[in-house]
Amino acid sequence: MSLPARTAAIIAVGSELLTASRTDTNSLQITGALNAAGIEVAFKAIVGDDRDELGAMCRQAMARVPLVIFTGGLGPTDDDLTREVVAEVLGLALHEDAAVMAAIRARFEARGLRMPEANRRQAAVPAGAHVLANPNGTAPGLWISAGDHGLLLMPGPPREMRPMLAHAMEAWVTPRWGGQRLRRRELRIAGRTESRVEEIAQPLYSTWVSSPLPIETTILAGPGVIELHLSVRSPDEAAADQVLADAVAALSARFPDDLVSDDGRSLEQVVGDDLRARGYRIAFAESCTGGLATSRLTDVPGSSAYLDRSVVAYSNESKIDLLGVGEDLLRAHGAVSEPVAAAMAEGVRARAGVEIAVGITGIAGPGGGTPEKPVGTVAIAVAGPAGTVVRTCRFVGGRGLIKTFAAGTAIDMVRRYLRGAAPDLDWAARPSK
Amino acid sequence: MSLPARTAAIIAVGSELLTASRTDTNSLQITGALNAAGIEVAFKAIVGDDRDELGAMCRQAMARVPLVIFTGGLGPTDDDLTREVVAEVLGLALHEDAAVMAAIRARFEARGLRMPEANRRQAAVPAGAHVLANPNGTAPGLWISAGDHGLLLMPGPPREMRPMLAHAMEAWVTPRWGGQRLRRRELRIAGRTESRVEEIAQPLYSTWVSSPLPIETTILAGPGVIELHLSVRSPDEAAADQVLADAVAALSARFPDDLVSDDGRSLEQVVGDDLRARGYRIAFAESCTGGLATSRLTDVPGSSAYLDRSVVAYSNESKIDLLGVGEDLLRAHGAVSEPVAAAMAEGVRARAGVEIAVGITGIAGPGGGTPEKPVGTVAIAVAGPAGTVVRTCRFVGGRGLIKTFAAGTAIDMVRRYLRGAAPDLDWAARPSK
Repeated sequence: MSLPARTAAIIAVGSELLTASRTDTNSLQITGALNAAGIEVAFKAIVGDDRDELGAMCRQAMARVPLVIFTGGLGPTDDDLTREVVAEVLGLALHEDAAVMAAIRARFEARGLRMPEANRRQAAVPAGAHVLANPNGTAPGLWISAGDHGLLLMPGPPREMRPMLAHAMEAWVTPRWGGQRLRRRELRIAGRTESRVEEIAQPLYSTWVSSPLPIETTILAGPGVIELHLSVRSPDEAAADQVLADAVAALSARFPDDLVSDDGRSLEQVVGDDLRARGYRIAFAESCTGGLATSRLTDVPGSSAYLDRSVVAYSNESKIDLLGVGEDLLRAHGAVSEPVAAAMAEGVRARAGVEIAVGITGIAGPGGGTPEKPVGTVAIAVAGPAGTVVRTCRFVGGRGLIKTFAAGTAIDMVRRYLRGAAPDLDWAARPSK
Repeated sequence: MSLPARTAAIIAVGSELLTASRTDTNSLQITGALNAAGIEVAFKAIVGDDRDELGAMCRQAMARVPLVIFTGGLGPTDDDLTREVVAEVLGLALHEDAAVMAAIRARFEARGLRMPEANRRQAAVPAGAHVLANPNGTAPGLWISAGDHGLLLMPGPPREMRPMLAHAMEAWVTPRWGGQRLRRRELRIAGRTESRVEEIAQPLYSTWVSSPLPIETTILAGPGVIELHLSVRSPDEAAADQVLADAVAALSARFPDDLVSDDGRSLEQVVGDDLRARGYRIAFAESCTGGLATSRLTDVPGSSAYLDRSVVAYSNESKIDLLGVGEDLLRAHGAVSEPVAAAMAEGVRARAGVEIAVGITGIAGPGGGTPEKPVGTVAIAVAGPAGTVVRTCRFVGGRGLIKTFAAGTAIDMVRRYLRGAAPDLDWAARPSK
């Protein structure tokens, strides 16, 4: 059977990694190093300190990929099994390596300690394996070449694992398995559902897949913002970058107003940069989002340069007092309505004396919905030098999700306003008046 | 071959989970739920959107354990393969389920949208599978009983996965695979560092471990709130509950003012309940937290009953205009100071005419720090019928973490104020004047 070239599996070993509170993070560094060398990760696994499970997963990985990378289970105690199990799966005898033994002993002596007998285990090396020095701990790493396979065994503590990974990549992995460089672009699209993005982008995907330098795409749907990750693998970085630039241009043309960024910037960063470029200041009048829109905008360092103020007006009285919303308006249309959202935005804009202002009023639920205005109904207004734009959206989900969607949509409506684009959103209940 | 009883494998599906920047976290919730039902996790795996790898891992898991739990890969797009691959491995035909189809269509119609053709895929159900409703998304979950095996397929987004997991555990997993009942209590403690909580609780732990019904404790440190999870495994539920009640009483005595709840309620819920019980209304004046404290308080359904308003006053002018903070005060002490925090709280309290008000002013960073007031310095005041209490805290971390810590501490200071407890906090820079 021939294994797919330039693919790897990562196996993290340790029962503590199978509890409800711990997660493996070594695999992220390892993935980064592998990807940079043009090697893809076929799968990752987390196995406890269990001889059978570890052996089964080792066999499974060797059946699927040429390169298998282990972290953890190289310590001195009885439940550290990686060394033994891998030797057993490969049918290799273990012998005590004198040089490793001496290094471990020296490490203890340097601290004025006698080496505990248990640490002898760490000097056991499978026949033919190469020992990888560990400047930050007693457990040496191991590199084993076995037929078509390469197996890398590294300790679990990140500060011991990292330098060893760098060395092993350079000495063993990249020369034999390294391939084409992976180039990537990240696009963010707002105001569209995931399936709408798919529908529009699908015709492009199909041309990309069949091109000489095929583009791989991944779609990640967050509440209100969709991420498209494009990647190309090629020995020629300039050619890969050109293919990606063309793809980004083609996508931009299909989402002219919806494309938030093609350089990894978040929606909040983009809006902040746009405000700063124009020398504009912004203010918010929030009701159902309870301050979340403002809080998200202020997650960006330096946002004090453009955020003037925000008012969370939950009660009708506070809408009247703080924002100058007319009592008659509230009575005629209800607090959740486009006229009130517009009055909130215009009220805070006039009082703060800023260029751009946002008004948000809606029903986050779970209570308070009516047949005409169900839970998830949110009116959002942006007021600015070009007048006031307002939309009513219908969001679906629990209270937290509705708040998140509404805050993100409000920030996206500011982005569209600043670019002179109409807020044509998939969740707008109807085109604006 | 007989499979080990009460063991499970968790498979997270999605190419984005195999990049260097993303990690699977769903498996932590799933592990918690399985452990609570007395089921152990034999291994976890992360597989990309790849038919062969997913099929191989599904077969591997079924060869090792009776219970296999998938998250992700149930979306509407071509690279969502979990449904199909599992059906293929089990040799089950897929058919379109009319009820699922209708539910998906209704979800789109509720937002005034036409269902995209792509979403049809999500109505495909393997023969004999049970459909699990998804109130928070279009992808239904699936439960499949296949001979000795149970397979649970859930969507990847955590807010969709979590309610489905709870339901599936109760309806399918626990009745057939559950072991000894696990009884649990959850305590939340605020204002203390993790190591302080450990130090105080350690003597109790040691007696619990050696008791006839030993208590297992897990400590989960969040920013500002520490959770202690106590659990006892026993066939006798009443005895287990008594042991836990005694332990909770012992802990409460050691953290009299710091114990937020022993019934799973969040800090925000507890403060909301306390405000409601007293018939008090609350208002916020936030600076560095940018609305986050208010947003967190409004995550609780029904919070409009006690939240009147909030003002995010980033600029000095807005602190003067909206809150009546004196210009002289700002000049004499600087915007980040106890007198200004107190004036913000008192200003918003007077203007809103509420019983309780909060003022928060600080340096979230990364810029703006000085030797006397480094990044992370935050002054927090609570004003109310018993006067004004103010503390300066020093938080450590990035901008987001500092905001989160400060918002949580402000809410905790309200809790302490309402209970007449002094704000003796581990992160207070010094005892209050």
